[in-house]
Amino acid sequence: MSVAAEFEAANAKYASTFTKGDLALPPQRKVAIVACMDARLDTARALGLEEGDSHVIRNAGGRASDALRSIVISQQLLGTREIVIVHHTDCGMLTFTDEVIRGKIRSELKQDADHIAFLPFGDLEQSVLDDIRVLKESPLVLDVPITGYIYEVESGKIVKVGSSQ
Amino acid sequence: MSVAAEFEAANAKYASTFTKGDLALPPQRKVAIVACMDARLDTARALGLEEGDSHVIRNAGGRASDALRSIVISQQLLGTREIVIVHHTDCGMLTFTDEVIRGKIRSELKQDADHIAFLPFGDLEQSVLDDIRVLKESPLVLDVPITGYIYEVESGKIVKVGSSQ
Repeated sequence: MSVAAEFEAANAKYASTFTKGDLALPPQRKVAIVACMDARLDTARALGLEEGDSHVIRNAGGRASDALRSIVISQQLLGTREIVIVHHTDCGMLTFTDEVIRGKIRSELKQDADHIAFLPFGDLEQSVLDDIRVLKESPLVLDVPITGYIYEVESGKIVKVGSSQ
Repeated sequence: MSVAAEFEAANAKYASTFTKGDLALPPQRKVAIVACMDARLDTARALGLEEGDSHVIRNAGGRASDALRSIVISQQLLGTREIVIVHHTDCGMLTFTDEVIRGKIRSELKQDADHIAFLPFGDLEQSVLDDIRVLKESPLVLDVPITGYIYEVESGKIVKVGSSQ
């Protein structure tokens, strides 16, 4: 069975007791989260989100530059006025460089990926501080509170590493 | 109180009963989900995900082209071999055009965002089919099963609209 088919079965159960069909489009708590795609991080459970609360933008590493399009839409069209960044321990982005993944793609897929910045990082805490700064300095991002955390996959805890305030 | 502070309080509760500190980095179910950032969609609850199961890539609209960097990392470095795309009813991406948001940014932020493709769409079902095709045709994406759904924010149900098979 494909995982998609398993998702369909799980969703039938979710929908059978669903009671949140009248939520508004704009996030109720006026916040956008930028987090890593990592499988071990369940942003809703780990941060106490209910359906309707928050935009959740996720990508490899939880990188801010890659989230810019979504953040602008979130703020300009849907009224969010706070940003929370979540990177995490044991992140895959700490394990490679652009050269490594481009080489792998060249040897295994016979393709050139030199035009893609994969945005890996060598220092986890610095990656959060860098991403706060990227958003703070972007002229396309409103001057809103930005707080950055490291999620510890070992403990389930978030540890604050910086904020824009 | 900032929403970030509320997240810290909710997380302290989550971490206090956390028992999943030994999960492996690669997603256990070898799947990457590409979904919209919409606040009403809780990908874990709606699809039956547990911590460790799946990469979750989310952006405005759940657009595939914007998820390409993350998908390549997911497949090349972390072994996922299936993709599930989830767009949804009442999506904000149905409500504007590049011209509208660029105009808003020009008048309110006094900035030029003409270099950003915001990737709105006019037809929801077609947007899912387009994104399946984008990934299917990308030479950087492995030939894996790709299934596309529309999540109904009114009912909590996912409705399959296409697949690569």
